[in-house]
Amino acid sequence: MYRTHTCGELRISDAGKTVTLAGWVQRTRKLGGMTFIDLRDRYGITQLALDATAPEELSSVANSLGREYVIQATGEVIERQSKNAKMPTGDIEIRLTKLTVLNEAQTPPFTIEDESDGGEELRARYRYLDLRRNPLRKALELRHRLAHEVRNYLDSLGFMEIETPYLIKSTPEGARDFVVPSRMNPGQFYALPQSPQTFKQLLMVAGYDRYFQIVRCFRDEDLRADRQPEFTQIDCEMSFVERDDVLEVFEGMMRSLFKNVLGVEIANPIPRMSWFDAMDRYGSDKPDIRYGMTIHELTQDVQGHGFQVFDSVEYVGAIAVEGIADYTRKQIDELTEWVKRPQVGAKGLVYIKYNADGSVKSSVDKFYSPDELKAMAEKAGAKPGDMLLILCGPKRKTQTMLGVLRIEMGNRLGLRDPHVFAPLWVVDFPLLEWDDETARFYAMHHPFTAPKPEHLDLFYSDRKEDLEKVCANAYDFVLNGTELGGGSIRIHDAKVQQRMFEVLGFSDEDAQYKFGFIINAFKFGAPPHGGLAFGFDRLCALFGGQETIRDFIAFPKNNKGRDVMIDSPSYIDQIQMDELFLKSTAETPEEQEKKA
Amino acid sequence: MYRTHTCGELRISDAGKTVTLAGWVQRTRKLGGMTFIDLRDRYGITQLALDATAPEELSSVANSLGREYVIQATGEVIERQSKNAKMPTGDIEIRLTKLTVLNEAQTPPFTIEDESDGGEELRARYRYLDLRRNPLRKALELRHRLAHEVRNYLDSLGFMEIETPYLIKSTPEGARDFVVPSRMNPGQFYALPQSPQTFKQLLMVAGYDRYFQIVRCFRDEDLRADRQPEFTQIDCEMSFVERDDVLEVFEGMMRSLFKNVLGVEIANPIPRMSWFDAMDRYGSDKPDIRYGMTIHELTQDVQGHGFQVFDSVEYVGAIAVEGIADYTRKQIDELTEWVKRPQVGAKGLVYIKYNADGSVKSSVDKFYSPDELKAMAEKAGAKPGDMLLILCGPKRKTQTMLGVLRIEMGNRLGLRDPHVFAPLWVVDFPLLEWDDETARFYAMHHPFTAPKPEHLDLFYSDRKEDLEKVCANAYDFVLNGTELGGGSIRIHDAKVQQRMFEVLGFSDEDAQYKFGFIINAFKFGAPPHGGLAFGFDRLCALFGGQETIRDFIAFPKNNKGRDVMIDSPSYIDQIQMDELFLKSTAETPEEQEKKA
Repeated sequence: MYRTHTCGELRISDAGKTVTLAGWVQRTRKLGGMTFIDLRDRYGITQLALDATAPEELSSVANSLGREYVIQATGEVIERQSKNAKMPTGDIEIRLTKLTVLNEAQTPPFTIEDESDGGEELRARYRYLDLRRNPLRKALELRHRLAHEVRNYLDSLGFMEIETPYLIKSTPEGARDFVVPSRMNPGQFYALPQSPQTFKQLLMVAGYDRYFQIVRCFRDEDLRADRQPEFTQIDCEMSFVERDDVLEVFEGMMRSLFKNVLGVEIANPIPRMSWFDAMDRYGSDKPDIRYGMTIHELTQDVQGHGFQVFDSVEYVGAIAVEGIADYTRKQIDELTEWVKRPQVGAKGLVYIKYNADGSVKSSVDKFYSPDELKAMAEKAGAKPGDMLLILCGPKRKTQTMLGVLRIEMGNRLGLRDPHVFAPLWVVDFPLLEWDDETARFYAMHHPFTAPKPEHLDLFYSDRKEDLEKVCANAYDFVLNGTELGGGSIRIHDAKVQQRMFEVLGFSDEDAQYKFGFIINAFKFGAPPHGGLAFGFDRLCALFGGQETIRDFIAFPKNNKGRDVMIDSPSYIDQIQMDELFLKSTAETPEEQEKKA
Repeated sequence: MYRTHTCGELRISDAGKTVTLAGWVQRTRKLGGMTFIDLRDRYGITQLALDATAPEELSSVANSLGREYVIQATGEVIERQSKNAKMPTGDIEIRLTKLTVLNEAQTPPFTIEDESDGGEELRARYRYLDLRRNPLRKALELRHRLAHEVRNYLDSLGFMEIETPYLIKSTPEGARDFVVPSRMNPGQFYALPQSPQTFKQLLMVAGYDRYFQIVRCFRDEDLRADRQPEFTQIDCEMSFVERDDVLEVFEGMMRSLFKNVLGVEIANPIPRMSWFDAMDRYGSDKPDIRYGMTIHELTQDVQGHGFQVFDSVEYVGAIAVEGIADYTRKQIDELTEWVKRPQVGAKGLVYIKYNADGSVKSSVDKFYSPDELKAMAEKAGAKPGDMLLILCGPKRKTQTMLGVLRIEMGNRLGLRDPHVFAPLWVVDFPLLEWDDETARFYAMHHPFTAPKPEHLDLFYSDRKEDLEKVCANAYDFVLNGTELGGGSIRIHDAKVQQRMFEVLGFSDEDAQYKFGFIINAFKFGAPPHGGLAFGFDRLCALFGGQETIRDFIAFPKNNKGRDVMIDSPSYIDQIQMDELFLKSTAETPEEQEKKA
């Protein structure tokens, strides 16, 4: 061992001990004849000291050190003259007697500090240096801790972690698969799993009634910001359970994670909200309930007063934003432009200022009396000093816009503190979504999601209006406005499954072609079962109080799916291509060059 | 919840309770007016009972049950008339008051019993049914338990589990990669990792001084028996360590696994053997030390007696096999044929019988006196009643054959009890292997393996004989004749690394092309480090007392790399191929059909 202690553990009680440390040189400085070296490792920083009386061979080594040199240092732990209360090791320093350079280091292309001077692209290229920075180290430590707690919790409840294969079969439904050509089966391909969904349901058929896995999943999608082509899921499934059994187990898991990892007590029980309520009140299927500012419908109140815009729409709704009645004309104009951006898509914004003095002012003054405006403001929960923001249009679309506006106003008003945690179960989703274009129903989750038991009658109805009312026995776990996980009770009854395919307009052959394998497996004694999956990268980020997942993944890819550190993907040898019976129809790098 | 208890937990102390169980019908039988149902779940079997006085609706459900039906059963726990001491629940049964069929089941294509009547192929196709069998359930439970213990042990020592990417870069060295075409980067490919070797070394550069991961690895090899294209590794790396630090940590891990999972105390410390000793005494770099029968060299003893065959060879060696002096001519002939098979490759077999009465008999009687033969037998450790088996030829090759013969004789004599565990560290491997054909050295492990510190002088010698003597700072963990893991201290010194490339005959450009990325990373302050990896599938199998890994993998592939359950790999859509800029040059299924 190159060390007796780490750089994070020595305290005043260790004074007098002779110790050996090893690590990286954070910085060196000279001060009145003294040389100080901050030595860093994963556990902390310890100050090494050398005075003017030190032997030449020691001080010459000390003088040769550059940033990030790897050194081994031996000396006596002594109490510091000027203590540093900010560092756990700030009471002591090591009076050096020996100093060995284990490895030199080129000057890193950016500073290894909490706030680095390196740009994102540069830091990604030298990820192994970026990972030396405290914020990233803490992120990965948090990730390890969370995974470990998840496993301990689920193991303690009798869950078995079972590894499912990564080389599986491409499926004709869902997002795009990554595929893997098989050399031994010419012309054929494996697919990388988008999730272990099929396998976990097979494990239920096989009798493993409490399964989980922290597992990598793959999706070949055009990457939106903060998506990764490979991501990690906490994947779970249980047999002989109803919805509330599943919710209880995973509510317990979340509670124990918050408590054991962050020392935070979350709501007990975690509130539940139906999808319909979530849409009506928050304009989102993943409401951020850290703050109010809920949506209120004003359709009845505003219509019939001669204001053409309101009179012609299906829905008018508002949010009351606290304390912004003093917004200037300019601020309101800016907000109006903001909601009209294509990302939001509103046609315009109507406001009612409920002034601190009790008076009202609105962009639709001429259609409504002050009393009417005040009544609307109060109905929507405004107090004097607040302002009502009103949008109108088709119901769900308008609610969604109000939801986006609500999040924006929450951000502007600082209501979305990342260190406050407001978990929520969203339940009772519609089972089916009607698509006008193809004139058929689609499964809102997937075709194995069970209808709620009390909606089975509706499910067998032939009327579209009835089918639209059927709720899925599904649930999402939402934290601070982010969907962290979701799942459902699955259909285990062959007759219900058949009805589902019928409703979705699948012929028997369709169903057999697309899902035959799992349908057949279910014929051999499938138990009632259900489960869910959590996005582990996102969970880590939220626990770390961050918005982006990239810092919580050791070696992430960029928005083009590239790992810029190892420069992957890359071209492969012709020999490899030949072995796989493949020809590329893409332009070669040479052809690209010629063109350019 | 569909149940109050599992099928494995009710005891006589529960008598009188009303309980609800759910599970699969193992069997039903009628006996003197009574109906008995064995109900099975993951936890055990509980007997349900119904007497002749039971209401019609109950007995008619009971009579309708087939094997593997999924049912829910409610009733009172009562003491059994005839207890079954073999079952943990054998003291009680459930007197049924309610019985519900949760799901029917087609008759499975083979029996769900400890010894099934289904062939391997059939069981593979219905893996989800095979997994219901006890031996497979126990195998997966063992696997879960082992993974959990590994994680707890390493976490307790400050190791962090860090996930490394699965979509990485194809490397020009080593075994064949599985590759993944990138849609977003036309013509380019990711590779699936053969191991996280590069990434774990980068994590050391990044300062994560204790890393581990239980991780899937991929190798596109022609599959020998009991190899899988995807397999799981316990992958570890440490910084600021020397060899013995690594061995100590992982010796502790193995000790705790044996103790906590199997209740077995293994040797403490685990013995260590040099590669040279292992070859000389066991004819193998992974000796099975559960039994003796070691190899003894007889070259000096046998040469110069006029026996041309022995006189002309480099090496003559023998093993003494206990208690087989009474082998018949026929048995010896059979053994001779066995060693002459191409899998062993010996030219012939010489024996010396050391009879129980002290006399000797040998196939080379005419060249040696009885006393000479007896002296040889005794030198090789034979006692009266034993027989010496002698092979000759080039030294290492002959030792290897003797090693194979030793294993065979160990099997025949029942010396290889899978429930006896004899771990061993093999150390001090040669660093380099000379290849006559290409007239150059190859790295026995990989080019980053460090030479032993005390052999550095030899390493800088220009003489081939000196370089052949250089030992690697590498180690293998061997259990019962199987290599379970291995690793090394890595080179962290740029000068030593350069010398390594020189010895291997790489030009600077070669080295840069093949390993440039990691060489560059090492310039920014690489700490001294080393690590190892264990084959987790094999570890599970050995802990389970089995030779083959397939039962310890939930969904394995066959020898052709196929998953016969999901029928993968498979052909993919032309649209998918086009999106990936790929054309297949393999025959299509139609073309194959036409040919046939």
